[in-house]
Amino acid sequence: MAEVTNPAATNPAATNGLVSGMSRGELEELVGKMIAERDDRDPNMITLVAFSGDLDRIWPTTILATTGAAGGMDVAVFFTFWGLFSLVKEEKRLTGDNWMTKGLSLMNRGSAEHAGLSKLNMGGAGAMMMRRLAKEHGVAAPEELMEMAKDLDVKLWPCQMTMDLMGLKREDMIDGLDEPAGAATALARMQKSAVSLFI
Amino acid sequence: MAEVTNPAATNPAATNGLVSGMSRGELEELVGKMIAERDDRDPNMITLVAFSGDLDRIWPTTILATTGAAGGMDVAVFFTFWGLFSLVKEEKRLTGDNWMTKGLSLMNRGSAEHAGLSKLNMGGAGAMMMRRLAKEHGVAAPEELMEMAKDLDVKLWPCQMTMDLMGLKREDMIDGLDEPAGAATALARMQKSAVSLFI
Amino acid sequence: MAEVTNPAATNPAATNGLVSGMSRGELEELVGKMIAERDDRDPNMITLVAFSGDLDRIWPTTILATTGAAGGMDVAVFFTFWGLFSLVKEEKRLTGDNWMTKGLSLMNRGSAEHAGLSKLNMGGAGAMMMRRLAKEHGVAAPEELMEMAKDLDVKLWPCQMTMDLMGLKREDMIDGLDEPAGAATALARMQKSAVSLFI
Repeated sequence: MAEVTNPAATNPAATNGLVSGMSRGELEELVGKMIAERDDRDPNMITLVAFSGDLDRIWPTTILATTGAAGGMDVAVFFTFWGLFSLVKEEKRLTGDNWMTKGLSLMNRGSAEHAGLSKLNMGGAGAMMMRRLAKEHGVAAPEELMEMAKDLDVKLWPCQMTMDLMGLKREDMIDGLDEPAGAATALARMQKSAVSLFI
Repeated sequence: MAEVTNPAATNPAATNGLVSGMSRGELEELVGKMIAERDDRDPNMITLVAFSGDLDRIWPTTILATTGAAGGMDVAVFFTFWGLFSLVKEEKRLTGDNWMTKGLSLMNRGSAEHAGLSKLNMGGAGAMMMRRLAKEHGVAAPEELMEMAKDLDVKLWPCQMTMDLMGLKREDMIDGLDEPAGAATALARMQKSAVSLFI
Repeated sequence: MAEVTNPAATNPAATNGLVSGMSRGELEELVGKMIAERDDRDPNMITLVAFSGDLDRIWPTTILATTGAAGGMDVAVFFTFWGLFSLVKEEKRLTGDNWMTKGLSLMNRGSAEHAGLSKLNMGGAGAMMMRRLAKEHGVAAPEELMEMAKDLDVKLWPCQMTMDLMGLKREDMIDGLDEPAGAATALARMQKSAVSLFI
C-alpha cells in the first residue's frame, strides 16, 4: 500500500484552529480534495497496447477502443512491434531503411487492410472469409474502426523504438496519428488507467 | 485525474450548519460514504477476456478464474473470437449457418477438450502430452476447471457479436453459461475490476 | 462497488464525543487513514505475466519491467508456461524428468538467448535479424534486460506448477530468481497493482 501522507504535516498552518468553526460544506470540500489527490486512478481512462498485427487481434483492439470512446471514455492505443505495421498506409508496398527492414516489409505487408489471421489464415483466404462474415453482419472492418477511432479522439501512439528498429517513417503511416511515444509514456498512462490490456 | 466533485455544490442544504455539532461517528460515516462513492474500483472483481481458443491459453484463463473465485473473488470471463470455440459442446462436430462458418467449425473443432497448443501441437500430440503431464501432476484439465468455475459462480459470458459472426447458437454451447454480452458490457465491468487481463 | 464499511460501527468508542474538539490536523490525519485503508491499489505496483517464451514477447515484458523499475516502480514478473523456458540457463541443453519433458526441452530450447519469433522466425534467421536490428539501434537484448531487471530489484517469479509440469528444476534456471510462486500469489499481487498485463 502507498504511504499515507498527512497533508497537515506539510502544511503546518492547517493544524491551527479547531474543526468546530468549519461548515459542513467546507468539510466535504476538504475531504473531496484529499480523496482526489490520493487516488490517481481515472475510472474513464483506458490504455491498450496493440502488440500484434494480426487481423484477429487488431479487431478487438479497435472494437474496444471505439466502444470505449463512444461511451465517453478517454482511450489511447499504443502500437508496438507487429502492431505498428497495422498503421502503415494501405498503398505502401515497401518500407525500411536497409536490406533487413526492407525484406521484413515485403514478408510482413503493412496496413490493417492486409493483415492476416493468427491461425487458419490459409494464405489470406481465412482473413478474406472473416472480413466477408463481418460485412454480412454489419461489423465494421478494422481500418474503418481505426478511422472511427480518430473521429472519436482516441489517441493513436506509434512506438518510437519500434519505428526506429523497423525503419518505419512517419510518412509511411496513416494520417491522424499522435506523436510517437515510448514505453515510459505508455506505462505512466497505464498507471492512471482503469483498464490496461496487452492485446 | 478525475475531476473533484464537491457534493456540497450539488446539495446546498449540506452547507447549512457547522461541523461542531457532528459526532465523530457521523464524521466517519460521511467520509466513508464519500470515499466509496468516488472509488468505483472493486478490489474483489476480476474480468478475463478469453480471446484465444488454444489449450495453453484456456488453461491459465480457467486456472486464474477458479483460483480467484475459490478465494472469494467475483470473477467473469468474456469469451470472444477463437475463445468462444472453447465453449462448444464436446460432441458437437459441426456448427455454423453457411458454408464459411460450417467450414470453419470443421477446421477449428470446438470444445476445450479438443483444443490444440499454440505451438508444438504436432497434430494434437503436443496437446495430448501436455494433458498427460497435467494429469500426472494432479492439475485439472480446462474442461474440468470450466465446470469448477460454474460451481464457484464464475460468470461465463459468450460474446454476442462473435456468436453471430461464427454462426454459433446457444444450443451449440455447453450448459450453465450466462447471457451473451457485448464489448460495452465487458468494458463497463473492466472499469470497475481490480484485475483485467486479455488472454 | 465494494461495501461501505463504517469504522465507527466496529469501534463504538469512536462515536463518543463531538468533532468540535478536533483540530484540523487531526481531522486530516483521520481522513487520510480512512482513505488509505480502503484503497488497496498501489499506484506504483506493476505485475506482468510472462506467458509466452517468444522473443517478440519477452522483449516488451523485459522492457516494461526495467522501464517501470528504473522509474521507481515496484515490478514483479510471473513466468508461466512457455514463458518459464526463457529463464532456463543458456548452456542448459536438456531439461525434464521423463521422456515427454525431455523431448519438449529439445524441441523448445530454453533461455531467452535462444528464443524465436512468434512469426517470421524462419528457423531462427528472423530472430537473429531482429537482434541485429536491436543492436544497431542500441536496444538491449532480452537476456541483458533480464540482468538489468535483477539489478533494479524486479521480482522474477517462476510458476511452481509449470516447473513441476515441465520438469524444470531450480538449478536449470538462471540465478537471482525469487521463490517459485503459484496462481493465487500472482493474483493477490495483481489485485493491488495499478497495472497488470498478460503478455
